[in-house]
Amino acid sequence: MRIALAQMDVTAGNPEKNVEKMIAMMDDARSKGAELVVFPELCVGGYFVGDRWLEDDWLNELLYYNGVILQHARGICVVYGNVAVDFDKRGRDGRCTKYNAAYVVKDGRLFWEAKTLLPNYRIFDDQRYFTPRQTGRRQLFDVAGRDMGVIVCEDMWSNDYDSDPVIELIEQGADFIVCISASPWTYGKNYARDKQISILERKAGKLIPFYYVNNVGVQNNGKNIITFDGDTAVYADGERLHGYDLAPYEEGIIYVDDDNFNKAGERRLPSRIEQKYNAIIRGIRGFDEMMGDWRPNFVIGLSGGVDSSLVAVLMTRALGKERIFTYNLPSVYNSSATRSSARKLADRLGVCFKDIAIQELVELNREVLKKSGLVPGALAEENIQAKIRGTSILSNLAAMHNGLMTNNGNKLEIALGYATLYGDVNGAIAPIGDLTKDEVFEMCKWINSDEELVPSELLPDDRYNFEIAPSAELKENQRDPMKFGYHDRLIEHLMDYRKKSPEHFMEWYLEGKDSFCEKMGISEDIFMLYELDKPDVFVSDLEWFVSTMRRSIFKRIQAPPVILLSRTAFGYDLRESQFPWMPTRRYLELRERVIKSAGAY
Amino acid sequence: MRIALAQMDVTAGNPEKNVEKMIAMMDDARSKGAELVVFPELCVGGYFVGDRWLEDDWLNELLYYNGVILQHARGICVVYGNVAVDFDKRGRDGRCTKYNAAYVVKDGRLFWEAKTLLPNYRIFDDQRYFTPRQTGRRQLFDVAGRDMGVIVCEDMWSNDYDSDPVIELIEQGADFIVCISASPWTYGKNYARDKQISILERKAGKLIPFYYVNNVGVQNNGKNIITFDGDTAVYADGERLHGYDLAPYEEGIIYVDDDNFNKAGERRLPSRIEQKYNAIIRGIRGFDEMMGDWRPNFVIGLSGGVDSSLVAVLMTRALGKERIFTYNLPSVYNSSATRSSARKLADRLGVCFKDIAIQELVELNREVLKKSGLVPGALAEENIQAKIRGTSILSNLAAMHNGLMTNNGNKLEIALGYATLYGDVNGAIAPIGDLTKDEVFEMCKWINSDEELVPSELLPDDRYNFEIAPSAELKENQRDPMKFGYHDRLIEHLMDYRKKSPEHFMEWYLEGKDSFCEKMGISEDIFMLYELDKPDVFVSDLEWFVSTMRRSIFKRIQAPPVILLSRTAFGYDLRESQFPWMPTRRYLELRERVIKSAGAY
Repeated sequence: MRIALAQMDVTAGNPEKNVEKMIAMMDDARSKGAELVVFPELCVGGYFVGDRWLEDDWLNELLYYNGVILQHARGICVVYGNVAVDFDKRGRDGRCTKYNAAYVVKDGRLFWEAKTLLPNYRIFDDQRYFTPRQTGRRQLFDVAGRDMGVIVCEDMWSNDYDSDPVIELIEQGADFIVCISASPWTYGKNYARDKQISILERKAGKLIPFYYVNNVGVQNNGKNIITFDGDTAVYADGERLHGYDLAPYEEGIIYVDDDNFNKAGERRLPSRIEQKYNAIIRGIRGFDEMMGDWRPNFVIGLSGGVDSSLVAVLMTRALGKERIFTYNLPSVYNSSATRSSARKLADRLGVCFKDIAIQELVELNREVLKKSGLVPGALAEENIQAKIRGTSILSNLAAMHNGLMTNNGNKLEIALGYATLYGDVNGAIAPIGDLTKDEVFEMCKWINSDEELVPSELLPDDRYNFEIAPSAELKENQRDPMKFGYHDRLIEHLMDYRKKSPEHFMEWYLEGKDSFCEKMGISEDIFMLYELDKPDVFVSDLEWFVSTMRRSIFKRIQAPPVILLSRTAFGYDLRESQFPWMPTRRYLELRERVIKSAGAY
Repeated sequence: MRIALAQMDVTAGNPEKNVEKMIAMMDDARSKGAELVVFPELCVGGYFVGDRWLEDDWLNELLYYNGVILQHARGICVVYGNVAVDFDKRGRDGRCTKYNAAYVVKDGRLFWEAKTLLPNYRIFDDQRYFTPRQTGRRQLFDVAGRDMGVIVCEDMWSNDYDSDPVIELIEQGADFIVCISASPWTYGKNYARDKQISILERKAGKLIPFYYVNNVGVQNNGKNIITFDGDTAVYADGERLHGYDLAPYEEGIIYVDDDNFNKAGERRLPSRIEQKYNAIIRGIRGFDEMMGDWRPNFVIGLSGGVDSSLVAVLMTRALGKERIFTYNLPSVYNSSATRSSARKLADRLGVCFKDIAIQELVELNREVLKKSGLVPGALAEENIQAKIRGTSILSNLAAMHNGLMTNNGNKLEIALGYATLYGDVNGAIAPIGDLTKDEVFEMCKWINSDEELVPSELLPDDRYNFEIAPSAELKENQRDPMKFGYHDRLIEHLMDYRKKSPEHFMEWYLEGKDSFCEKMGISEDIFMLYELDKPDVFVSDLEWFVSTMRRSIFKRIQAPPVILLSRTAFGYDLRESQFPWMPTRRYLELRERVIKSAGAY
């Protein structure tokens, strides 16, 4: 049997476009002699469409396309994802019961099986919208004499659920399994999936072919831009057959002859930083596609620092230099070093660059504010400059360029709220908002390894010595307050899906330097660089970090969408309520022990 | 038996404070001879704490307080809500299994029953955090010789779920039921709850006493400020006994002697607009409390229009005039009428008022922007003024006043994005962000019925004639583009929990004017006022409305938290993904029929 695995690029909210593409892919599959073509989960309307799922007319529109697909499926069996609706069964909200379903078109008839396991963590709200499959025998579908079982995405991650769709299918005699998926990319998921397949098939004691079909493209939930890298895969004898792999984010059809598997080829996964780079590039393009027919230009405030430099490189690589307009906006506090660094970068990228001095506006703004009878304090003085840049200049320039502006913040800055609301928090998209500062440096170095684009003066050595040190340049001799190489680790541990908390860090500390460094993921060199051997330094820094992180939630509420790259990004991936940080009792006990440990190092 | 129903004010994220209060209330109950004291759902740590639920150390902290409560519960049976944790049962995320539980302390022992029905709609994410109660016989607790059954909040709303906790308890022989709840206020919920109780008890064929205990106070989910009005209630023979009712949002203990019910008293619910007013006032105070030890001042930009006038009244009523600082910020387009209206209002409120002209800054901003080589277009010109106000002036003044600024937008403006991002979208809180324009007018009139505060020139007659018409005053002779009295209805129908869509409006239109007006909720007068009898006017307005609503999602992503008042507010109550509006096929068919219907009216 020949099987076509259609790794399609799905546009959320546009079933007409999606189904048109499906029909073209079905035609291609038929013409190449395939007996079965498989499309991803919810490929008709998209997965992340928010509360559009609550509208009956959206459901009706999606159901209409079942008929269209049925009509075009002559001579080929088709598996695809769409919503299934029981209009007669309404909840107390007056809304009908919906299933996230795998549809099977076979011999002019339409069947469906609902998704059993509904993820409701991180960015996923499946249980807000869908009802799980009811228990009972699963359908098997005869395709060219073989019994096919179908499951949907999370159904294969059954380890900690009460039901196990894959095992059930194998026990019920399936000859092969098709898993349709809409699985966003995050680093490490591809390996985890390969591992999961072998866990499952070994658990079942029988290894049958398993076809995993994921979509590519970009969708969003408002606060996050979510990329799908595809990674559609063929598994036989519990092993992944890498000869079939498409490139990340590549749309295309994989043809598989199940009586003659191609067992050549090997995993060709790019490095971690290259994967994140790819995700950002695709994320930016996807954000651009979300604008419908409008192709916005992008205005970037180039401070001459490393973050905005990286954003400029990424935006230019993603959209081409013609659509990028960069501006350096110096006040009296900006050094000639950063100003020339900004210009150098723009020259290297070949993008439009201008500098516009903001000093005059800053001074007039200050004068006008004094009419209130009050005088701006030191912090307000700093913020005035950032707001003039972000709002008075860049947001207006974005409109004048018929475009949008970028937010250039990284994850560490967002965590600490080290940015001015209505200033550098502004933007339509935060391309590097899910990169730690170390990842920013690493990505710059990786980009530069081909050809120096980001001025090397901005990039540190291993002990975070800089030729041009990171600074907001909002007052004299300002330096970023972050402990580079250490605070990144805090944010990773605090944010990760498997969350650590300050109490864990305290415990590691009490275990001694070696254990702390190992568990935290820092070198002894970094540990000593920041004098973490002094318990009071360690403790007061940690408390500053966690309380500042909570206190800055109000800025994130008003921050632009972040491209998701990690195992928890700011946005709707991490859901934060506003209230101050309160140490737990255990924290206070541990703190006392840590402080008493002085001299132990 | 004497029962104490403790309608406590819960502070999310602060178990120490909450438990201290619980102990005081337990002492009060004991001293008044109560044998049972009942506290609300998740009263130890709060309900809306976001992903803090995913941190083990948060759970441990909450569990610690079980011991504290147990210790203080001598001589009285206590029911209260807290998390229950199975640390040994971990999901694939590495996190432990959690239950939203009703704890019962009795004779020095601790028992718990988990919440069975977990709401996962609107603002609720229960299934993100909690596992439902497993099936099996429910526990009954002997209190003074009576068998008590306990349930949690959603458990009483079982109509459309597969299991029915109340019925099960009655069938298992409970003598009375205690329902602990953390149920946010929205208009109409109190009546619905009374009705639900009688549905349930009649369904069971037996009417046993039912005690409903809800918390008061304010919690938030980042994008929404959520108020809890309490409405703790005693139901006997399926009827609510109104003699026990506390005032909305009032903290206190209700004492009930179940062998001598007080059957006097009647429902004293304020009018709809007064309920919403109460919720806003409590919401503002709750937002203020969320700031921990900091008591911010509030800066309000007073345009002289109705929205900012109402916000100024509400903020002053909630926090007192000493903390309110109002500013009128005229450009050349502001009329003397609105300027004097702003001053009049501030005088009436007795709050600090200043005016600061922004023209000079607007002009310099324009000049500086021209250094880009581009000239601002008409819309950019308008936005420059709004941004100078919102960012350059008000946000800085807020900092200078050691405070925050308000967002003065109403729900209709937010829906249409009729506000400037980084201008009047700014703010730390949107007090009237969930009021339609009609509700804004109605609330002003209701407030004025005591004493005129909002200048009556700003308030329309029934046909929306104004002395001072609503205008953004950003260009000559600008008028708000909304169809007052009609667009509000669109937004209500589109946003409501039981969502309507443009297709419904089309269908109603095809049914004829009477049906349209009735279902839409408008008078014939309004219908004719806007020439909706002309199908092309109706259609093009509707398409403008729904496409503008979708196109403005980017502004809402960056908008401040909204106090929740309706059955769906902007924020996390409505979850929106960014993509353009696409008419469905059915919409296009209906549209064609509507256009053809010209002359039918």
